[in-house]
Amino acid sequence: MLRAFLPSLSRIHRPPRPFPSLSNMSSTPNTGPPASQDRSNLISFSSRLKEGRALVQDVWSIFNAANLPSDCINLGQGYMNFGPPQWVTEAAEEALKAVAPNHYSHPKGRIRLREAINNFYGPQFNRNLDVESEILVTSGANEGQYAVFTAFLEQGDEVIMFEPFFDQYLPSVTFNGGKPIYVPLHPPPESVKKPTSDDWTIDINELRRAITSRTKMIIVNTPHNPVGKVFRKEELEQIALLAEEFNLLVMADEVYDCLVFDGKEHVRIANLPGMWDRTVTVLSAGKAFAATGWRVGWLIGPKSIIQPTLAATTRIVFCTNSPLQEAAAAGLEQVKERKFFEKQREEYNERRAILTEAFDKLGLKYILPEGSYFVLLDVSKVKFPEDYPFPPSVVGRGRDFRAGWFIAMEIGVSSIPVSEFYCEEHATIGEAYARFAFCKDTDTLKRAAERLQKLKNYVE
Amino acid sequence: MLRAFLPSLSRIHRPPRPFPSLSNMSSTPNTGPPASQDRSNLISFSSRLKEGRALVQDVWSIFNAANLPSDCINLGQGYMNFGPPQWVTEAAEEALKAVAPNHYSHPKGRIRLREAINNFYGPQFNRNLDVESEILVTSGANEGQYAVFTAFLEQGDEVIMFEPFFDQYLPSVTFNGGKPIYVPLHPPPESVKKPTSDDWTIDINELRRAITSRTKMIIVNTPHNPVGKVFRKEELEQIALLAEEFNLLVMADEVYDCLVFDGKEHVRIANLPGMWDRTVTVLSAGKAFAATGWRVGWLIGPKSIIQPTLAATTRIVFCTNSPLQEAAAAGLEQVKERKFFEKQREEYNERRAILTEAFDKLGLKYILPEGSYFVLLDVSKVKFPEDYPFPPSVVGRGRDFRAGWFIAMEIGVSSIPVSEFYCEEHATIGEAYARFAFCKDTDTLKRAAERLQKLKNYVE
Repeated sequence: MLRAFLPSLSRIHRPPRPFPSLSNMSSTPNTGPPASQDRSNLISFSSRLKEGRALVQDVWSIFNAANLPSDCINLGQGYMNFGPPQWVTEAAEEALKAVAPNHYSHPKGRIRLREAINNFYGPQFNRNLDVESEILVTSGANEGQYAVFTAFLEQGDEVIMFEPFFDQYLPSVTFNGGKPIYVPLHPPPESVKKPTSDDWTIDINELRRAITSRTKMIIVNTPHNPVGKVFRKEELEQIALLAEEFNLLVMADEVYDCLVFDGKEHVRIANLPGMWDRTVTVLSAGKAFAATGWRVGWLIGPKSIIQPTLAATTRIVFCTNSPLQEAAAAGLEQVKERKFFEKQREEYNERRAILTEAFDKLGLKYILPEGSYFVLLDVSKVKFPEDYPFPPSVVGRGRDFRAGWFIAMEIGVSSIPVSEFYCEEHATIGEAYARFAFCKDTDTLKRAAERLQKLKNYVE
Repeated sequence: MLRAFLPSLSRIHRPPRPFPSLSNMSSTPNTGPPASQDRSNLISFSSRLKEGRALVQDVWSIFNAANLPSDCINLGQGYMNFGPPQWVTEAAEEALKAVAPNHYSHPKGRIRLREAINNFYGPQFNRNLDVESEILVTSGANEGQYAVFTAFLEQGDEVIMFEPFFDQYLPSVTFNGGKPIYVPLHPPPESVKKPTSDDWTIDINELRRAITSRTKMIIVNTPHNPVGKVFRKEELEQIALLAEEFNLLVMADEVYDCLVFDGKEHVRIANLPGMWDRTVTVLSAGKAFAATGWRVGWLIGPKSIIQPTLAATTRIVFCTNSPLQEAAAAGLEQVKERKFFEKQREEYNERRAILTEAFDKLGLKYILPEGSYFVLLDVSKVKFPEDYPFPPSVVGRGRDFRAGWFIAMEIGVSSIPVSEFYCEEHATIGEAYARFAFCKDTDTLKRAAERLQKLKNYVE
């Protein structure tokens, strides 16, 4: 099987493009004109790029489609291979034909979108949101989170995040002077035969012990990427009590809020007693409307959090693109009547089943996700030759990097190694898993499921 | 005349919405749970918001259309009252109907746009740009500049900017730990009867004296906002020599590069001897294609500047919205054949003439701009009653804030006071001017020109 793939390996194993490879660049202090005549590196970059893995070749570029065989089925990065609904894109097309929606939005966001957000989410937060001070449109959820860190972190402030964590948190925190503090989500014990994301647990005493006088924020990502865990109300209540006791800002990253399965309840921590005043909830049009490239997200929270964040985002991006805000507004305006999120959830449920049935058939353990569009496959039993021609970007990283690369090359299905979502110290926990995204059409997933059966040849 | 407007004043003079008014919020250190039961301000915001005017009510919100009479002609903020060309928006509509252009772009930008940038700008930079390492698409020129500061500034690094300066530079520098250093553009002497933007001059010795061992960067904005100055080659050569001598990074903000009039040559400082290696040029789809709300810009420079900036922008926004990158690409692909920039320049030339003829007829001095879409009107001779009912946002700021407000209210044409583009220490220089934007259709500008004749009643 390995041999059969070999003829194409020379094409495949070209070194991935560096992203960014700054190995030959300096960040030494700027002390005047350069001594040598080498003009390829005159200006030293900021030392902040040395933190938060900002210069490490990240997992997204290593496992980028461009580096993989062209016929590899891409279940790596979490974007859809289908577009947004037509009734949503039509609103963008309409906006493009007008004048004002091609020009600057108010930095708070377009009023139509802010009103749509209030109408749709207000009831979910049990309040009428003030569109002037409790809603902020951002250039994707990512930039929204970055702006919160810019607005609130003081040099040396500590930000607690559960491990595994969405990898962008790390540099977003360190770029703004913060210090990431990791608290583990504990994986299910070996004895659990059919683990679900609910079997990943927090130890509230561990969380308490992680809090210091410099703790400023805690990030609560539910539904969780990459685990798929939908935090239980009791867990959130315990976190909330600590947030109250130690006066912490809570960033509730709920970008997958519309993708919760099996009747599980998505609880918003902002709705727990007292928590509104200290919680900013992060949401995403990209996840809601299958439009990850629109870069439209929104924050919901009290004036005391939204207004400093507005001051930050106004300077970082000034405002978010206008035509796609109009589209997101049209989307939120119509989802109820169209039962869009209900139907979308059903579609994702079907997609999830294709993948998990393939894993069941293979006899490999995986984490059944209650939310998000990711399944963690336990790849610790997948065997590969140690002398396999791995590219340098994969060698020296976790075992999961090599396993994921091997599966992409030999089976033709790409995934993302989960050790990337851990700090270096704890990376070994993540090495057991590869993250497969099921935000793809059913045909693609069925083809992937079929290919994955070939993994049998590599399971001990 | 004043009295005739009074009946509407009560409607007009509602207090402008705070943006952001954080006066009752704290940035004191986080020392534990709040003492009082006031839960409206639990979490202290970062002290960085106290720098760079981040919390001051900015000029754009004070002179926001929402705060002015509804029939006021808005020549304040620099956005067009016409849309992008249809052949450009059609490319966005096409992108919206496809799948991939609704999803994440590569953080470097979509390859079609990077190739279009190389094809269009490469010859202007006398080189074939490497689309992998010498071009970076950003979420507007603003975010591109922010990312450069994030990538290169060390705490305490000094950034030189000519005054007046585009107001966003200031917080973008301070948020990233930098210290702004101001070097004046000297206004034309009183004796010049018909000044142009070329009569604003730099004193190269003043610039030299501003350089210290901590100077890291110099921002060169040409064509200049708000003055309209198109820097002469000799001026840029002098700046370049200092950049070489002191090993400075040069940020060439050239977002108005397609709007240069009267046959004046736009010189790119990156093209001067040795300067490519230390210059990043900032450009904007919003200015090029009358689409300020698209938030698509691009940086051109050597790998040593682009790659650290890529690392920064990837963390700040991850990537720029995809559908409007496709539109910008289509725009650049077709501009030559359509002679779009030539025609657009002619249209702007006509627009500029409507405004300057109105000022000539009024007998008020103004700065004839060689580039950009702004005219500075000398308002020092415009008289207004000191007891005029100015809103609190305008009282206590420069005289130009009151003059601009008065003109908006009494004449019905809004502008932007120029002291906002100066540091506090030098704000008095700017107080002589109001900035009028002529990125409006000719009908609007003609109506504004007619209204402006009424200013005669208030000129001494």
